[in-house]
Amino acid sequence: MSQDILDRLEATIRERRTGDPETSYVAKLTARGRKKMAQKLGEEGVEAAIAAVAEDKAALTGEAADLIFHLIVLLADAGLTLDDVRAELARREGMSGIAEKAARG
Amino acid sequence: MSQDILDRLEATIRERRTGDPETSYVAKLTARGRKKMAQKLGEEGVEAAIAAVAEDKAALTGEAADLIFHLIVLLADAGLTLDDVRAELARREGMSGIAEKAARG
Amino acid sequence: MSQDILDRLEATIRERRTGDPETSYVAKLTARGRKKMAQKLGEEGVEAAIAAVAEDKAALTGEAADLIFHLIVLLADAGLTLDDVRAELARREGMSGIAEKAARG
Amino acid sequence: MSQDILDRLEATIRERRTGDPETSYVAKLTARGRKKMAQKLGEEGVEAAIAAVAEDKAALTGEAADLIFHLIVLLADAGLTLDDVRAELARREGMSGIAEKAARG
Repeated sequence: MSQDILDRLEATIRERRTGDPETSYVAKLTARGRKKMAQKLGEEGVEAAIAAVAEDKAALTGEAADLIFHLIVLLADAGLTLDDVRAELARREGMSGIAEKAARG
Repeated sequence: MSQDILDRLEATIRERRTGDPETSYVAKLTARGRKKMAQKLGEEGVEAAIAAVAEDKAALTGEAADLIFHLIVLLADAGLTLDDVRAELARREGMSGIAEKAARG
Repeated sequence: MSQDILDRLEATIRERRTGDPETSYVAKLTARGRKKMAQKLGEEGVEAAIAAVAEDKAALTGEAADLIFHLIVLLADAGLTLDDVRAELARREGMSGIAEKAARG
Repeated sequence: MSQDILDRLEATIRERRTGDPETSYVAKLTARGRKKMAQKLGEEGVEAAIAAVAEDKAALTGEAADLIFHLIVLLADAGLTLDDVRAELARREGMSGIAEKAARG
């Protein structure tokens, strides 16, 4: 299958939003609402930062995966997709150079 | 060009790490070190969370782009790639279902 | 003066909210609004966490001071005071034991 | 008792560090180590930020209490006290004005 795992993950997350909160973590988060999802994203950012400073590569890989997972969950709840974020990154790239543009952030 | 913007962004970031800190934001962050990069990632997680709670879709799109940018910067500094994170997500998917596995996080 | 430095700091912050954003950091943050103040608090939490993991005591002391400063700024903007937080901590203490009660968090 | 609740809280936390992780939350956190405590502090910063943006005063009061609690836990683990942080705040105050000095942060 040639589709990017990120897109497959996004499709899975979108499908599970309406699932059973008892068996699906995504459905459970969705039921708890936007603030809870935002909180989880913020927490994963903190955990990834700590893993990086602790120089724990395995932990950083896992936290990065958690971060992307929760980012997609939050985007989906806001009616946004990874493609919206890709478009924003492409827009910055087109303006002059991705890395430099991001410096405004 | 069919390559994913995320991979182009990663290639650009990796190339700029050794650039001039005066003109490249990536080179500047690299020069400031791991803790600074980790701090930036944590900050972007907070900003994305706030944008989501404030229900500001445009801001959330921008913060998500910043978050991914800084995640790649930090991964690169740790000798990791987006493909390492994709492999971790694929591993979880293979185990039974991505979304559920992430619940361990 | 026997008054706690935390209370003096709070009095100073409350007074400066209506000051000149050009010369007062508190007035500048106040002018930028609630989201900016919340963002600063979240950032300081991340920075304190990183300093702690990096085992940098001097940095942790400084970040803890920054964290308390920005917490008071945010509380003030929300019409809350350190005494409101002290009352909440005392309430938990009265219930059975501060440390255990906080475990609900 | 006239002692500040913050100091009583700190004394309680310090005493419970060597307690039973089965019954004391502080002992449990201490057993899990520095990274876990740092993570908790970062998380509370995110939660306080979200409560502030959501304009939920009761939640902000509770999160501020959680934040101070976990800050003291982390300071204690690093061999630091609230008085060390107060001394840093007093030092900044003495230099010219607390609020302005903090702007360097």
